[in-house]
Amino acid sequence: MKIIRSISEMQQTAEALRREGQRIGFVPTMGYLHEGHLSLLRKAKNLSDATVLSIFVNPTQFAPNEDLERYPRDFERDEHLARQEGCDLLFYPSEGEMYPKPYRTFVTVDEITRVLCGKSRPTHFRGVTTVVTKLFHIVKPHLAVFGQKDAQQAIVIRQMVRDLNFDVEIVVEPIVREPDGLALSSRNVYLSPEERREATLLYKSLMAAKDCIENGERDAARVRQKIVDMLAKAKTARVDYVEIVDTRDLKPLQELRGEILVALAVYFGQTRLIDNVMLTV
Amino acid sequence: MKIIRSISEMQQTAEALRREGQRIGFVPTMGYLHEGHLSLLRKAKNLSDATVLSIFVNPTQFAPNEDLERYPRDFERDEHLARQEGCDLLFYPSEGEMYPKPYRTFVTVDEITRVLCGKSRPTHFRGVTTVVTKLFHIVKPHLAVFGQKDAQQAIVIRQMVRDLNFDVEIVVEPIVREPDGLALSSRNVYLSPEERREATLLYKSLMAAKDCIENGERDAARVRQKIVDMLAKAKTARVDYVEIVDTRDLKPLQELRGEILVALAVYFGQTRLIDNVMLTV
Repeated sequence: MKIIRSISEMQQTAEALRREGQRIGFVPTMGYLHEGHLSLLRKAKNLSDATVLSIFVNPTQFAPNEDLERYPRDFERDEHLARQEGCDLLFYPSEGEMYPKPYRTFVTVDEITRVLCGKSRPTHFRGVTTVVTKLFHIVKPHLAVFGQKDAQQAIVIRQMVRDLNFDVEIVVEPIVREPDGLALSSRNVYLSPEERREATLLYKSLMAAKDCIENGERDAARVRQKIVDMLAKAKTARVDYVEIVDTRDLKPLQELRGEILVALAVYFGQTRLIDNVMLTV
Repeated sequence: MKIIRSISEMQQTAEALRREGQRIGFVPTMGYLHEGHLSLLRKAKNLSDATVLSIFVNPTQFAPNEDLERYPRDFERDEHLARQEGCDLLFYPSEGEMYPKPYRTFVTVDEITRVLCGKSRPTHFRGVTTVVTKLFHIVKPHLAVFGQKDAQQAIVIRQMVRDLNFDVEIVVEPIVREPDGLALSSRNVYLSPEERREATLLYKSLMAAKDCIENGERDAARVRQKIVDMLAKAKTARVDYVEIVDTRDLKPLQELRGEILVALAVYFGQTRLIDNVMLTV
């Protein structure tokens, strides 16, 4: 596995691979890799000839009050894990390389970025779509793999790819969970033992919602209330949002119908966790 | 010359050319071609193996009160001219092909798009950077040629290309003028005979400014006033702006120094014309 830190070297390497007819599969990450990331890497490897993983804790997707500074980092461990999975290229740029000053250009997706996570994190998706655009131009992938854990992100990226005519196939892989159901996240390391125990309520409440929809419930407000009630049992939890939306426009549903996303964000102490389930009704 | 109307066909064609090792040169236009466009096409042809011209009157760079509907169009003439110049591919998409609904993604460049033309046309550059991003993803050029007539546009595109890491070389070609100095523009057809006569004052006033700077004048306000006074002689003219700015950040200069842009926009009747001169002091 080759580690590349320079944008121009990554572009030249990608260009050479493409000229040889090799298919490039790409997994963009912020590092501190867990099984979720590794499942994306395996998928990319299955679908391509050359696999590129990027590790970059992207400052533009954090608001000033968020956890950019303390976001967990462990490059040596990440490098080891990526190598073990047979990753071919690891792109690991510095902040100065990615955002030379004066930096002035942003990619924004309207409407679907103002709801769910975009409501409490109004500049987050602008940072995500901007850095993904940059990374696509640097890595020149044929396909890129994202995780369903960040359901809204995947929908926003698909919209961006369609609107801006990126010639990149977007693949979305299922959530990887701990044995007790907690979705893997680099942020889980922040949790105290009590918060960690209570965080299992995220998945439990989503499964309860799923059950009740599969048993015929079509009223979104009742399903939503069921989740909120279950989460209320956790002493360390504070709900950011619980929403049931249409996957096409992320607008809240009243009557459950079509392809729906049940999504939630909950603080356990200072740590904001997200989870979701997608259902076809 | 092949005419392509479908995005996916253009992408496949571009991808095939790149795999053969051919260098793609691109000239994006809104059609109604004149010698200015043709000079860009010749430059692209000189620098590449396959030349692509696009013709698309981009609605997102027009404000609702602007001239989108009456913007001059003549596809048959454009096709003939492009063919004569030895253009290889003409990309001519429909509005529905370029902006399928619901369309939600925009590329914005901050700061340098709020001055000069961006002041009176606040959504203009967002439309330009968005469509150029789309066209770069569709045509996959190695280089793209723009005209110095749209000086601010060229500076904004260079900033976008740098910030978003487009692997595309940007080439900017000099303004082509009528024998009496008027810069070629598709919008010149709007002018009445009197407006057309008076429009020569744009270039004359820029040349007078250049002379006085070359003769040692370093006070921007005095140079600017000289231009404004000359334009005041035209009965049909109404100044939108006359500005003398630093080419790096487009901020107004007080003392003339470094690489400077003298730029103006003037209405003749209903028709807004722009012109500029770049100088190193």
